[in-house]
Amino acid sequence: MATTAVLSRFGASDRAQMAADAGRVIERLRKHGAGPNGGVTRLVYSPEWRAAMADIEEWLAEMRLAVRHDAVGSRFGRLVGESSSVVLSGSHTDSVKQGGAYDGTLGVVMAGCAIGWLARNMGKPARTLEVYANCEEESSRFASNFWGSRALTGRIATGDADRLTDENGETIGSAMRACGLDPAAIPSARRQDLGAYVEPHIEQGPVLVESRDVIGVVDRVVGVRVIRVTLNGVSGHAGTMPMANRHDPLAGAAEIIAGAERVAREMGAPAVATVGSIAAKPGGFNQIPGEAAFTLDFRHPDDHVLDAFEHELRKLIQEVSAGRGLDVQVGQMLHQTGIKFDSKICASLEASCSESGVRWRRMPSGAGHDAQVIGTICPAAMLFVPSQGGHSHRPDEHTELADIASGIEVLVRTLFRLAYQDS
Amino acid sequence: MATTAVLSRFGASDRAQMAADAGRVIERLRKHGAGPNGGVTRLVYSPEWRAAMADIEEWLAEMRLAVRHDAVGSRFGRLVGESSSVVLSGSHTDSVKQGGAYDGTLGVVMAGCAIGWLARNMGKPARTLEVYANCEEESSRFASNFWGSRALTGRIATGDADRLTDENGETIGSAMRACGLDPAAIPSARRQDLGAYVEPHIEQGPVLVESRDVIGVVDRVVGVRVIRVTLNGVSGHAGTMPMANRHDPLAGAAEIIAGAERVAREMGAPAVATVGSIAAKPGGFNQIPGEAAFTLDFRHPDDHVLDAFEHELRKLIQEVSAGRGLDVQVGQMLHQTGIKFDSKICASLEASCSESGVRWRRMPSGAGHDAQVIGTICPAAMLFVPSQGGHSHRPDEHTELADIASGIEVLVRTLFRLAYQDS
Repeated sequence: MATTAVLSRFGASDRAQMAADAGRVIERLRKHGAGPNGGVTRLVYSPEWRAAMADIEEWLAEMRLAVRHDAVGSRFGRLVGESSSVVLSGSHTDSVKQGGAYDGTLGVVMAGCAIGWLARNMGKPARTLEVYANCEEESSRFASNFWGSRALTGRIATGDADRLTDENGETIGSAMRACGLDPAAIPSARRQDLGAYVEPHIEQGPVLVESRDVIGVVDRVVGVRVIRVTLNGVSGHAGTMPMANRHDPLAGAAEIIAGAERVAREMGAPAVATVGSIAAKPGGFNQIPGEAAFTLDFRHPDDHVLDAFEHELRKLIQEVSAGRGLDVQVGQMLHQTGIKFDSKICASLEASCSESGVRWRRMPSGAGHDAQVIGTICPAAMLFVPSQGGHSHRPDEHTELADIASGIEVLVRTLFRLAYQDS
Repeated sequence: MATTAVLSRFGASDRAQMAADAGRVIERLRKHGAGPNGGVTRLVYSPEWRAAMADIEEWLAEMRLAVRHDAVGSRFGRLVGESSSVVLSGSHTDSVKQGGAYDGTLGVVMAGCAIGWLARNMGKPARTLEVYANCEEESSRFASNFWGSRALTGRIATGDADRLTDENGETIGSAMRACGLDPAAIPSARRQDLGAYVEPHIEQGPVLVESRDVIGVVDRVVGVRVIRVTLNGVSGHAGTMPMANRHDPLAGAAEIIAGAERVAREMGAPAVATVGSIAAKPGGFNQIPGEAAFTLDFRHPDDHVLDAFEHELRKLIQEVSAGRGLDVQVGQMLHQTGIKFDSKICASLEASCSESGVRWRRMPSGAGHDAQVIGTICPAAMLFVPSQGGHSHRPDEHTELADIASGIEVLVRTLFRLAYQDS
């Protein structure tokens, strides 16, 4: 059903208001963890994170939403509907170290602005609407990514709270207690009343900026696989070992890195392959290395294509190693299957884009998001707004207020469909 | 002049005796710094080094050579000749950490055996002969390589003794004082009476083992240049940045490393190029690096060819960087010109090999040696004996006693030419 007639009152002045509100809240939240360069470091359960969460609670309450938090500290701002089925929208509030003010937080701000507008203008919904300010997604303090959404979906293992430690050796359980949260209560965070989840987020890449589309309707999150390749050859003196006699593992690694890039390019977008970390031992400038080790991250939205991609990469590794007389070990670091989002929510997002008159495109997400976790227990999808320069996880993260306002309008129309028109 | 007639008495029993003597002294010295795996760690001015030097003094005295040490602690065993012009032979006694019993020390042992034999069998020489047990070549404790031979040639700068520190912050001057040596006396170590220097050494590479030659007549030490290449691109998220948009400095480094290997192979032996050290920042497995830095060591005995080699490598670096939109900085870490050894001593070594009936070849040294320093003040050359497996700087360094005996015979004949037949 079209929303145009019902939401005809969402006009130019609403867009201007949304842009102003969103901009103000972004800057209000930025100060919790902001450094001198505008970069934000807001690690979960830190004083900065606590202050941001308190500020979010205050803002949600100003919009007359019913505020609560769950066992891990995620915040919810509730607009009660006729039914107990909940349409949830939001994202995370933690950041990477020296990140920006938009990654995660903008999704919370957009959801708050959209649900606040619906509360003020459209009255009580058929389904309950909730703003979601998630407590930890980045795993920038603990190796606990998707902590909030895993709590929500009952996926935190018993003992994780005492096992995961930050770089100072503090457990996540201890950090929770310092925030007045009881790790033993984590199972109570599990939700069984979710009817839909819509996560707005910055793109973190250059696709929208380059295509000049304003909204990305994200219908998938790619599968991610990461392997660790360790090559062992024969160390030696850089001056006395002729080229023809060498079994140089770093030269082998270079050949594999160049080859992996070629495989990904030949496979074509959205296939990507990345070597982010490399080391050679013993490491003297005048020593042929005896060992070289590197990580290889490769992604594709189609698991079958990803299988073929992995096959090509492993064949390359074996061929280069065999050709150079190197011993090779390949270890699996990460094997995360992709997720296909709910086609009905994606269609709602597209219809809302059309009604809002904004350029949009369907696209996969190459990065992981809470929606891929929450999407395992209820219909879910995401919308992206452009990242200036394609940048994220940097102090200069930025999204234009006009684009944010467009995103909020699309979200208003989509949440209206899901919470007022569906039931 | 041939030595055959004069040295006809150097026969099978002498070879056997030399093999036995050398083997015994090698094992006698190995114990100063030996670990459980037979590896030797004998850093300059350490207790192990002092014990080895004391043992060498004792051995030289057993052979009735006049023993003394210079200001930096190098030992000399002197067989006085008719003239004060000195023919010096030996090498260094310090080792790398977890090195072997042969690198350096074998040269001292071979020189001692040869000059001891000449002293016992040939009487007083025309020129004075000296065994040289040098005090520091490896720079494995201080950044002070060729310390002993630099002292000998007057190349230690005022203040170096107080400036160079080991990993514990102790200066080399303080370490000298603990051995009863006065850093202020370093200038007194300078020699102006040297007529020739012959340095026996293990090859540290596989050339002799593979060619089945027993002696390498070393007529040159290669020039060594080391550059540090730093590539800066655009860091980004491994999942959200399409391959086509990347400026990945590590992918660029891989292309350069593969290219440098190709350039060295195409140039042909003895050209070598080595990347021993590499790092990528920030270094997360899911981050496209923003910076990649590596060292590039390249060597060739002909300085003109080395210039062309450097030109090719720098062109490669510029082309790859430009093609990928990377900023590049190239810093010079080392620029060491090669040395061509004395042709007359090389000819003496070759004639001695022929007379001894051993297979030999002319070859350059790809590694640096004291002879390249001492060769700047007097005629010098080196002879290599085979390194088992081409290995050095490892606990399993080894040279067969038969090859050592051949090397000593060649050295006896060469020193006889230089000290008894020349004057």
